[in-house]
Order: sequence, then structure tokens, then C-alpha cells
Amino acid sequence: MNHFTLTATDTYSQARCGSLQTGHGVIKTPCFMPVGTKATVKGLTPRQLHEEIDAQIILANTYHLFLRPGEQLIGDLGGLHAFMGWDGPILTDSGGFQVFSLASLRTLEEEGVTFRSPVDGSRHLLTPERAIEIQEILGSDIIMAFDECTPYPVDYDEARRSLQLTARWAERCKTARKRSDNLLFGIVQGSMFPELRRESAELTREINFDGYALGGLSVGEEKSLMYEMVQFTAPLLPENQPRYLMGVGKPEDILTSVAAGIDMFDCVLPTRNARNGMYFTWQGPLVIKQARYRTDSLPIDEQCSCYVCQNFSRAYLRHLFQSAEILSSVLATIHNLYFYHQLMNKIRLQIEKGSFIDFMKNFILNYDISSQSHSK
Amino acid sequence: MNHFTLTATDTYSQARCGSLQTGHGVIKTPCFMPVGTKATVKGLTPRQLHEEIDAQIILANTYHLFLRPGEQLIGDLGGLHAFMGWDGPILTDSGGFQVFSLASLRTLEEEGVTFRSPVDGSRHLLTPERAIEIQEILGSDIIMAFDECTPYPVDYDEARRSLQLTARWAERCKTARKRSDNLLFGIVQGSMFPELRRESAELTREINFDGYALGGLSVGEEKSLMYEMVQFTAPLLPENQPRYLMGVGKPEDILTSVAAGIDMFDCVLPTRNARNGMYFTWQGPLVIKQARYRTDSLPIDEQCSCYVCQNFSRAYLRHLFQSAEILSSVLATIHNLYFYHQLMNKIRLQIEKGSFIDFMKNFILNYDISSQSHSK
Repeated sequence: MNHFTLTATDTYSQARCGSLQTGHGVIKTPCFMPVGTKATVKGLTPRQLHEEIDAQIILANTYHLFLRPGEQLIGDLGGLHAFMGWDGPILTDSGGFQVFSLASLRTLEEEGVTFRSPVDGSRHLLTPERAIEIQEILGSDIIMAFDECTPYPVDYDEARRSLQLTARWAERCKTARKRSDNLLFGIVQGSMFPELRRESAELTREINFDGYALGGLSVGEEKSLMYEMVQFTAPLLPENQPRYLMGVGKPEDILTSVAAGIDMFDCVLPTRNARNGMYFTWQGPLVIKQARYRTDSLPIDEQCSCYVCQNFSRAYLRHLFQSAEILSSVLATIHNLYFYHQLMNKIRLQIEKGSFIDFMKNFILNYDISSQSHSK
Repeated sequence: MNHFTLTATDTYSQARCGSLQTGHGVIKTPCFMPVGTKATVKGLTPRQLHEEIDAQIILANTYHLFLRPGEQLIGDLGGLHAFMGWDGPILTDSGGFQVFSLASLRTLEEEGVTFRSPVDGSRHLLTPERAIEIQEILGSDIIMAFDECTPYPVDYDEARRSLQLTARWAERCKTARKRSDNLLFGIVQGSMFPELRRESAELTREINFDGYALGGLSVGEEKSLMYEMVQFTAPLLPENQPRYLMGVGKPEDILTSVAAGIDMFDCVLPTRNARNGMYFTWQGPLVIKQARYRTDSLPIDEQCSCYVCQNFSRAYLRHLFQSAEILSSVLATIHNLYFYHQLMNKIRLQIEKGSFIDFMKNFILNYDISSQSHSK
């Protein structure tokens, strides 16, 4: 039996609903994965992730856990699920993106990447084999192939060299895998060149992964260019396997990408922006520090059923933010993750009902990205 | 019917159990009140206060709420309970202690205290009448008389002048009270002079309050001197009214004071120390950053049934603390408040069973205040 089953497809777009079987339960797609970088979704207990958010799956960052506290410690304590007290599915990235964006003094070679730890200055070599080993020691349900995240902008030749290295590394990742209780996803690169995206998709498909990710997007390019790449690349991937758009995105990006046939998303926006006092609403983002909310007795979003909107006014949430209270981050994180999960719930429902495109149009019509729509 | 009923008294000490009726429910005493200075117990949602801690009552600070966001805003939004989403009882202090310890450029006069706000530099006058008005606008269930918190050390004459001013202010507080749905507590001062504590207790009793607090203790004096003052003063207060020892304390202080006949406590220790990575356990404090806990798979306290001890290892909690994760503060706060509430539950049970003194001796025997008792 395949681990991924399509349960509904849209007539008017490439959108689809699916069911993804993992070692820690079934995930309904399209889905959003809250980011739990260092073995914690910042500010929330696993109980809150279940009870307040109904989160299906979370993402953790291999690079960060490798540096601190180290994968071996986590493995010795029973793996990442036991370590962080989360019994649902976990996806880990390969560490590739972070090595290229965060580590210093890195050297790229065929073998892998050598870099210096920002935590203690120690030198490390991350290879495809090592990235798989680390993720398997962590015990993730979905593990990612180690890729070179091609920088942007980049010329055609460099993008091609990079995607071909990623493909050779992908092959080595497949070979290095030892556990049979996880799913291994390959990553398609190719920068903003359709021809190279096609080449990368073909090379990656040949290796036969359990799922396919689109990497190297949302890295500074124009939004329209990203959409173009997603729309071009998604249909090049196997229809009967999950498709994951890494690091994306805003609600409008998710809708557009679902319409292009993407099944999985992760992004730091709902959690990071929460800590900066930005709340997502069905009318657009709301910046709680604004003086207009000082005496505002309304909830963040009158349409929202989350714990925060059922119990607290904008005035209270503004007070917490202005007072730099921890609870400000906690409540905003609960609300924003609830919003993202409601968005995904609605997306799945609308695909099943055959009304996804209308829903998407309506959402975008009501959603003011300028965050100026919250008059009392 | 009296708002306070004694339900059990200890044969071998002054310890007693009681039931205190407030506008938002009944409190079983002896009780501990978590501190929610700025209308939040730092890091915890009201839901967590109910479900993880089973908190009976919380304390909020009038001084802080007066400065930001202002009592009128809170009053306009339905009062402090509605504002912060907490439906249980709330006690507010009078602001006196904070004016004397936090505000700058303060001037003490018969009328009240003039001071400058550290938030925006504005000048304010806090008087007994104003302190009561603010607390009544907040809608607290238990409000405190405005007192001069006598500094320590202080000479006899100054301590006497101060307690007499506090008594005159107490009278004005009683007169200023307008609402009938709260309880008003007077505060006994007198520094470390038994004779002055007696004078203050008599003056305060004459005014006939709903409860009596011991103020001006735990302000830098020797522990033994504080115990002496508590033991001397508690019996001077009406037996059929609740007695509240303000700002105390460590577990051993609470036990000793319960034995002296104290019913209510508040202290920032369990919450503040939590944010510094200090966990209370039945064997003594545990400082989670210590290297010995790096690979420790045990819970913080094997005897503890809290959410944290049921789900997380010391190694994970150390990782969160070392990574400066918000969840470190949240989980340590849950554990420490649970510990304090379990301590109070046990105290009440042991008083009812007639075995309080044995329990206290046993506790102190097992409790290593040096925090060196946590070998693996």
C-alpha cells in the first residue's frame, strides 16, 4: 500500500486532498507544519499544540539540533518525539539550507560541506550520509535529502552545477538510509530556470523518493516568479506522491501553491511574527502595537474560534505586547497557528466540495495585505 | 454569615484550615497566590492556571496596572477578571509597597505619596482613597489597605511614626470603600519591634477589616527574626479572620508561618526563579543549567505529577534553558507553581489529619536548600 493516497482533486485547478501515512499517524493534506526549530514550537507546550491548534505534524531543524544538544543525546533519550514530548509526526529538514544560510567559513566539496559551528566554533563536515544518519538518530517520520540550496540570484551554469550536485547527493542519501519506518523526500532545485527545474525534477524522480520538495524558492525572488516556478514544477512531480514547498509562506502564497498542486508547507511566519505582535486575521495582518487598539474590546478576529479570540480583547493583547510579557508571544502564537490550521482545514474542505477556486478568490478579495483593514 | 470559616485547627501548632468566600468563588486556606503583576502570571494562560496548576486565586499589582494600562481602561473593559480572562478570585495589593520600592522622586505626606512614573515620567499622587478607588475599578475580590511599607532597618521612633500613619491611612481606606462585593484587608506594620507590632495589630483590629496582613517582613532581616515576628504577631489577630503574610516565601518559610497561624501567602519566587531555570523539588531546589543534567533522563522530581514531570526529562529542560527558549520559562513556571500548590494541598490535608507538624519536620529533613541533593 502506498503511504500517500489522493482523496479528492479539484476540477478547476491542480489542487488536491490527500492522506499521508507516517510512523506517528496519518496527515491530511494540504497541510501546514509549524516550525519547532530547536525541539520546541516557540512558547507552546505539546499539549497546547494538540488541544489549542490541533497540529497534525511539526517540523524541526536538523542543523540546530545537531549543533545543540547533539543528535546522539536526543537519540540516547529515545529520539526526538520522546525528547520533546510530541507524539505526532515530525519532519526534519536535512540541515542543508541552514548550513548555507547560517554557518560561517563553509567549504563546499563533492563530499559535503565543512563549516564552523556558531555555538562553539568547532568544525564539522555535513555530508549526505551524515545528514541521513542524524535524521535517523533523531527518529523523524519524514526525512529530507541533503541538498545544496542554490543561492539567488545565480547564473544558469552555476544553477545547473548546483542542481546536479544536489541530484548526486540525493542518490547518496537514498543509499545511506537505514531505517524503514520513515519517509525520505528528495528536493528539486534549479533556481528560476524552468529548463533546470525540469532537469532537476527528472533527476530526482529517477531516484524514486517517498515525496518531493521544491527547494530554493522564497529566497528573495519576485512573488510572481516564485508562483511561476511552483506552477511549472509541481506537475513535473509524480501525481501519487506528496509535494512539499519548503519555507512557504504567507496565506496567499499557500492558496496559490495549493492551486498549483502543492500538498505540504512550513514557514516561520505565523510563529515569528507572533513574537513581533503581528496577528493573522481573515481581513489581513493586524499589528497589535498600534495605538488604535489601546481601548479596543473586540477580539483579534471576530470570525475566529481560537482560545485567544474567545477570551481576550485587542486591548489586553496590546497591553501584553507593550509590557513585553511572555504571554504576548504565547497567545499570538496560539492564534496565528490556529489561523494557519483553519486555513488548511478550509482549503481541504473546499477542495472536497469542488469550490476551492471560489474560496481562494474570496479569501484574497477580503484579505488586505496592507493590514489597514481593522477599523473598529 | 462570615466570609471566613475555620474548618480544622492543629493540636500541636497554630496551624489552621479555613474556607474563604470571595466574589469569584471559595478559597481553601492555607493557600498560595501566584503573582500576576501586570494582569498575567508570566508565561501561563488562564487555562493553564486552571488545568495545569489548579490555582485558586491570583494576585495582581495595583501599582503596575495603575501605570500601564491604567485602571480606567481595565474598568471600561469590564474589570480585571474580564480583561485578563481569569474567572477565579483576584487579590490586588494597594500599590504601597511598589511606590516605596520602585517609584522615583517620591514624597511622603499625611495625604499620601507623590511619585514619578518610571513608564512615562508623569507625576502621580497615591492616597488611601485613590488606592481603594483603583482597586475597586479593577474589581478585585480582595483589596488591600494602602500602607507605608516601613523600610528596614529602621529605628523605633521611625517605625512607630510609620505604623501610626499606616493606621490612619487604614481608617481612611475603610471609609473610602464603596463596593460591597469585595473584602478589604488591613496591614499590620511595626518593623521588627514586638511592642510596635502589637500596637499596629491593635490599631488595625479596631478598624475591623475582613482580613489582616502582615507587611514589612521578608525585607532583608534575618530569617529567624522574620519567623519570630510572624509567631509573635499572628496570635494578635482575630482568630476568625484570614491572616495573610505578604511576599513570603520559600517552602520552609510557608511551613513555619502556617505553623504560626498564617492562612495566605504570595511570592514571586516560584515564577521568577522558574525564568532563571530554578526548579523547586521535594528534595530542594534544582538549578537546571548545571552540566550534570545534560544527559539526565529523569524528570525534575520523580515524586511530582505535574505536566512537566510527566512528560519531559531534565536533559530536555536543560536544553530549553541553554537555548533561551520561551518554553523553558513556561514549563518551569508550570512545575514550580504546581509544586507550591501541591505543598499547600498537603499542608491542608495534614492539618486536617492532625499530622501537620510531622509533615513539616519530614519536609524540612528531606529538603536540601543547598540544591546539591540531585545526584542521579
